[in-house]
Amino acid sequence: MRSRILFTLLTVLFLVTPVKSSNAGDWGTGALMVIIERETSSVLVLDSAQNDKVLGRIKGLGLLHHATISFSRDGRYGYVISRDSLLSKIDLIKLELTAQIKVGESAVGLAVTQDGKYIAVSNYKPGNITIVSNETFKIVKTIDADKSKTVGLVDAPDDKLVVSLMDANEIWIIDTSTEEFPVIKKLKNVGVKPYDALLTPDGRYYMAGFFHSPWIGMVDLWNLDKGIRKIPLPVPDDKKGQPPVLKIPHLEGWIMAGGNLYAPVIGGSGLAVIDPATWRTKKFIPLLSYPVFAMARPDMRQIWANFVMGENNDAVQVVDVKTQKVVKTLRPGKKIFHMNFSPKGKKVYFSSYGDDKVAIYDTKTFKLLKEIPVKKPSGIFCTDRAHKFGL
Amino acid sequence: MRSRILFTLLTVLFLVTPVKSSNAGDWGTGALMVIIERETSSVLVLDSAQNDKVLGRIKGLGLLHHATISFSRDGRYGYVISRDSLLSKIDLIKLELTAQIKVGESAVGLAVTQDGKYIAVSNYKPGNITIVSNETFKIVKTIDADKSKTVGLVDAPDDKLVVSLMDANEIWIIDTSTEEFPVIKKLKNVGVKPYDALLTPDGRYYMAGFFHSPWIGMVDLWNLDKGIRKIPLPVPDDKKGQPPVLKIPHLEGWIMAGGNLYAPVIGGSGLAVIDPATWRTKKFIPLLSYPVFAMARPDMRQIWANFVMGENNDAVQVVDVKTQKVVKTLRPGKKIFHMNFSPKGKKVYFSSYGDDKVAIYDTKTFKLLKEIPVKKPSGIFCTDRAHKFGL
Repeated sequence: MRSRILFTLLTVLFLVTPVKSSNAGDWGTGALMVIIERETSSVLVLDSAQNDKVLGRIKGLGLLHHATISFSRDGRYGYVISRDSLLSKIDLIKLELTAQIKVGESAVGLAVTQDGKYIAVSNYKPGNITIVSNETFKIVKTIDADKSKTVGLVDAPDDKLVVSLMDANEIWIIDTSTEEFPVIKKLKNVGVKPYDALLTPDGRYYMAGFFHSPWIGMVDLWNLDKGIRKIPLPVPDDKKGQPPVLKIPHLEGWIMAGGNLYAPVIGGSGLAVIDPATWRTKKFIPLLSYPVFAMARPDMRQIWANFVMGENNDAVQVVDVKTQKVVKTLRPGKKIFHMNFSPKGKKVYFSSYGDDKVAIYDTKTFKLLKEIPVKKPSGIFCTDRAHKFGL
Repeated sequence: MRSRILFTLLTVLFLVTPVKSSNAGDWGTGALMVIIERETSSVLVLDSAQNDKVLGRIKGLGLLHHATISFSRDGRYGYVISRDSLLSKIDLIKLELTAQIKVGESAVGLAVTQDGKYIAVSNYKPGNITIVSNETFKIVKTIDADKSKTVGLVDAPDDKLVVSLMDANEIWIIDTSTEEFPVIKKLKNVGVKPYDALLTPDGRYYMAGFFHSPWIGMVDLWNLDKGIRKIPLPVPDDKKGQPPVLKIPHLEGWIMAGGNLYAPVIGGSGLAVIDPATWRTKKFIPLLSYPVFAMARPDMRQIWANFVMGENNDAVQVVDVKTQKVVKTLRPGKKIFHMNFSPKGKKVYFSSYGDDKVAIYDTKTFKLLKEIPVKKPSGIFCTDRAHKFGL
């Protein structure tokens, strides 16, 4: 009985106490990996530069389904947006919640402005963009989106934000350099029901995907007056003429590697190799299944793809960009929900939601380096996002 | 008299005590600016994410003429190589010297391996590459370079180092994944007297400049068997047929912006706009003088150039990549030795060696934001280099 009480006490202690290292705070913040624990409102923090040591856990972050994280310029703070619009500022040195504010009822994205002064949230409900001051963590502006859900929110150079209006089929550009936060441009009729977007690494091109239009919408932020360019999606020959499927890839990265663009095939099981000069699909690379994430190693030599649905949800495949062939199939664990690279791509991290672990591999040798127990992990975010436009 | 003594005491205290903030160590390391104080063996550390607050000074770093700094993956440590081959590891949280080792008599460059385990130094004298363990800070390997000075040392993907042999006219590739550190490739007769080199941001192409050959040598690290490709240097029409001048630009960055390559004109006063498909010079953009550094803002929309020599040593010019025109001429201070950007390019930092200050400008409005007294500043290095190949 006594041991039962002790066990309960220990369990409670474990649940309420952050897992802090003995010298908490004595680390650099440039290469931390922050992992969403999807079902427990928490994140786990690892240090990729210190042999993936577990630094600690931060709790009380709301409903973390589809949660995402952006970082302050110095990598010290993470900003977590929960599915229920709870915006949290977490301190990655003290390993604690610094500030928190409810900015709506439902949200899926956020962005930190170029100067680091504001955190913007794209709300589904109520349909708006809500801007929070980093210093006071209070709402300084709400930009009403004509009752439309907002999505694909990114920060862009010269103090800009770009966002898509899911129900209004528009793309807006917001200037964050004045406290009025004016919408300086509204592009209309861009495509039917934008669902996600990305910004190219140079911060110049905004690319939006649509549920009901068979193109990617591209906006050149250097030439806003040119409006939207519509780029046909890669469709395999036997699916031509069919409507686009709803299961479309997350637009997390723009894979321009070795002079070609790589994109998951809509309605197929592989990657399309696209010539960016003509937007013509030159080749298909078959994969085990339909990729949910397809991400390039930071040096663009490899593309890694995972498959959340079906029997291959435990698999990851690696395409070598030089030969355009699959060079490795790994099975790191059940339900690989997400992956990410250490800043220079030496290591890759997989969230195995089904096996309650993060598995870490060497990207050159494909050897398993380490497995770390993590409760129902989903998104993995490295603090090097702090220096990338659109992330 | 008493006040004289007090003043002397205060001066001595100032000289021996690091300028520490009250809460030393309580900051992220992702966006620190480390500035070489060229004549006093010291560096000053600013935090670009905290309104450029001066965090402190670290001393005793050797002869800092032509000194350069690379960083640990987490941005916590800087590695400084002095002109007299003193390699220092500095702690950017504790603001102190962590370790130091003399690795030769004369050096100009260093690189941290992709996994962060080793720091490699390219020595002029004795001609070698010396590899130091980050953990023990002891020499683990010396690779003799056949009595040649070594230069243009960079870290590359998949645990590689690439280096040029100034007197032997060779480029070597070293594998750092085994403790033997084998030279896995020696490219011979690459050009006469390589003096500097760079790696493209994707880590794929190594570009070497030569004192006595009128080309840039390009090595494709994905296709080492193809050897070296010789790319003609941009030369203005009235200088054609003349030998290349000795005063050549530092190869710090590869400026591929808006689909074109920008490079300082050899023997001229401006930037050449080069078509990377044909290597033909399409246009010259005249500048005040011969640029010593020409650097792109991180979003590649602007190119900033400085001119160390002559009457325009106080000037900086900004070229807009969209219009290919000079849009601004600033005069931040005497003898602008170097410049650097905050991680997403919101701010630019200038070392004014002649005015003992660093001047910080907004890159959108071109307004002066702040001036900070710094003793004879030269190189400015941001910890975001930690995540970039070749830096």
